[in-house]
Amino acid sequence: MQIKINKKDFYEGIKIVKKAVSSKSTLPILSGILITTEKEKIKLVGTNLELGIECNVNAKIIEEGTIVLPANHLNNIIRELPNQDLEIKVNKNNNATISCELSEFKIHGFPADEFPLLPEIESSKEYNLEQKVLKKMIDRVKFATSNDESRPFLTGSLLLVEDQEIKMVATDSYRLAYTKFKADQEITNNKVIIPSKTLDELSKLLDSDEKVKILISDTQISFQFSEITIISRLIEGQFPNYNQVIPNNLNTKIEVNRQKLLKATKRASLFVKDNSNIIKISLENDKLVIESTGSQVGESYEELDISKEGENTEIAFNANYLIEVLKIIDNEEVLIELSGGLNPGVIKKSESDEYIYVIMPVRSI
Amino acid sequence: MQIKINKKDFYEGIKIVKKAVSSKSTLPILSGILITTEKEKIKLVGTNLELGIECNVNAKIIEEGTIVLPANHLNNIIRELPNQDLEIKVNKNNNATISCELSEFKIHGFPADEFPLLPEIESSKEYNLEQKVLKKMIDRVKFATSNDESRPFLTGSLLLVEDQEIKMVATDSYRLAYTKFKADQEITNNKVIIPSKTLDELSKLLDSDEKVKILISDTQISFQFSEITIISRLIEGQFPNYNQVIPNNLNTKIEVNRQKLLKATKRASLFVKDNSNIIKISLENDKLVIESTGSQVGESYEELDISKEGENTEIAFNANYLIEVLKIIDNEEVLIELSGGLNPGVIKKSESDEYIYVIMPVRSI
Repeated sequence: MQIKINKKDFYEGIKIVKKAVSSKSTLPILSGILITTEKEKIKLVGTNLELGIECNVNAKIIEEGTIVLPANHLNNIIRELPNQDLEIKVNKNNNATISCELSEFKIHGFPADEFPLLPEIESSKEYNLEQKVLKKMIDRVKFATSNDESRPFLTGSLLLVEDQEIKMVATDSYRLAYTKFKADQEITNNKVIIPSKTLDELSKLLDSDEKVKILISDTQISFQFSEITIISRLIEGQFPNYNQVIPNNLNTKIEVNRQKLLKATKRASLFVKDNSNIIKISLENDKLVIESTGSQVGESYEELDISKEGENTEIAFNANYLIEVLKIIDNEEVLIELSGGLNPGVIKKSESDEYIYVIMPVRSI
Repeated sequence: MQIKINKKDFYEGIKIVKKAVSSKSTLPILSGILITTEKEKIKLVGTNLELGIECNVNAKIIEEGTIVLPANHLNNIIRELPNQDLEIKVNKNNNATISCELSEFKIHGFPADEFPLLPEIESSKEYNLEQKVLKKMIDRVKFATSNDESRPFLTGSLLLVEDQEIKMVATDSYRLAYTKFKADQEITNNKVIIPSKTLDELSKLLDSDEKVKILISDTQISFQFSEITIISRLIEGQFPNYNQVIPNNLNTKIEVNRQKLLKATKRASLFVKDNSNIIKISLENDKLVIESTGSQVGESYEELDISKEGENTEIAFNANYLIEVLKIIDNEEVLIELSGGLNPGVIKKSESDEYIYVIMPVRSI
């Protein structure tokens, strides 16, 4: 194998596929990136066997071939090289020589035929979505997923296609985030759980105006956009019935400035007792009061102006669950619906059910 | 005590004095910041008993008084408040109430009379220096100080005043950094060792065109500028005779592009053997060759153009010692002087002895 490639293009590609390379794998070859020549391109592949990322990079192919090079080391070297054309030459012993100006680096590689193939997605359903729509949906729900590996179906987000709508839902059983988007074309119903790590990496890579092509089989999902393909296993198991969790007709509804509520909640969380992170919210006519007491350092009291329909009430929440959702909503005002201090509360972006966040109360202190 | 103070001014002051507050002190009151009303100002003080920082902040004094408030907690609260006037009121039980718009925070404080006084600098010598000159001198040497607490005199930088010159020197016995500056006025000879931590914090705070007033007694040093005073203990002990360490008349002299040498050294350090961090430098007429070999991942070879006087030679260095000095020199070219592979090398900013860096060779591999 022998190629010429621009440093910047190569480095961008390495950074992308490296996201799927695990530093902790017991299989040494998985710490590497597979490089394969194609027509006027090279294909880079990184995988941890659960998530695989492929990226094509323009290159001049002098001699075809394929090699696996250690991802971290390759990344560090290429980053430090001047922004110029590099020549990469691989010999029969899987040693790569990278040359650039008067510099020359030899890197020991692995034989490419030992690198695991990414699965092909067969008999799949296909969807096409705007990148920014998919990114927004992911970002609105993924922070609510659970870390609890004993309930794997909560460690991912549900992707649900029904009634010509695409929905995403995530929950850790203390709060639930739900968002939906109306499809602009006929689409097939479907229901899968996508691992959190896959959505994290996907969300970071989505940034152009092009569409993403999504292919879903029984066990795998792939996302194709620009020169990138992400292939991930799906999580098995039954996602909780989120419809039962989202309450209806709550009898207290308020509208409040999102930024002010976010900042007040952050400050109140500095005064919580023994890391419990519990803050108390009271609605008193046109005021919302946030209090936290009982900490060693002191106590806090804050009032915010609101507009309210329905009864006054009091409720206690984990401050973090409130902070995370208030960060992600992009409206100036948010709607909060409550029904006493013992029932879940609902936070919405607007009157529509485009985005709904359900948060369980904590027994007050 | 009762005051009105602008949030931003207060927060800037807290951030400055907090640098001297240790999070690990066994004395709880030292985790706090002393706040004392003065005329139209408050004085903030933080100290870990080795280093103390004072900062004056404009405020409206409604009632005089003094209090110690926990530094971290105060910092976190004030940071999150809107940029407005705050009112702070302290009651007899050392509880402070901070009010702002419709928010109110109670913070438990400590009685101010238990806070240790910063030492007065008596019978001192006085020096006045441009902030940017002092900053440059500190930054040029402080990275070469040692972390070895068993030889405390190497954990600080020598400040030496002699022959109407101000000199700073630091060494960890593997390399030595020396810089000097010609004084523009009559100054008294002196010789003290300033702790590394003091110089770190001082360097970060020096950024205006005003002069710094330096007072030095037998055991303490203070730096006064803007509204800030830094008071530090000095390190006792005999600093090594740096004149004996700086070699003269080395028989090989080269000039090389600093950025290119820095980047090549960084790349070579990625190929060092077993974290030894040793790279080999060879001078071959008008070329400088950097090599590192023997690592599991591969090997590197780089050539740089140089202009040279004297013999060809080979030498091995710790790559980090080279990287750190090449980062701090602000010239396009640097001068390197060598005398074979077993004697120390010298790196200079220019022909003058304004900045000299001595680096010990390592036995090559």
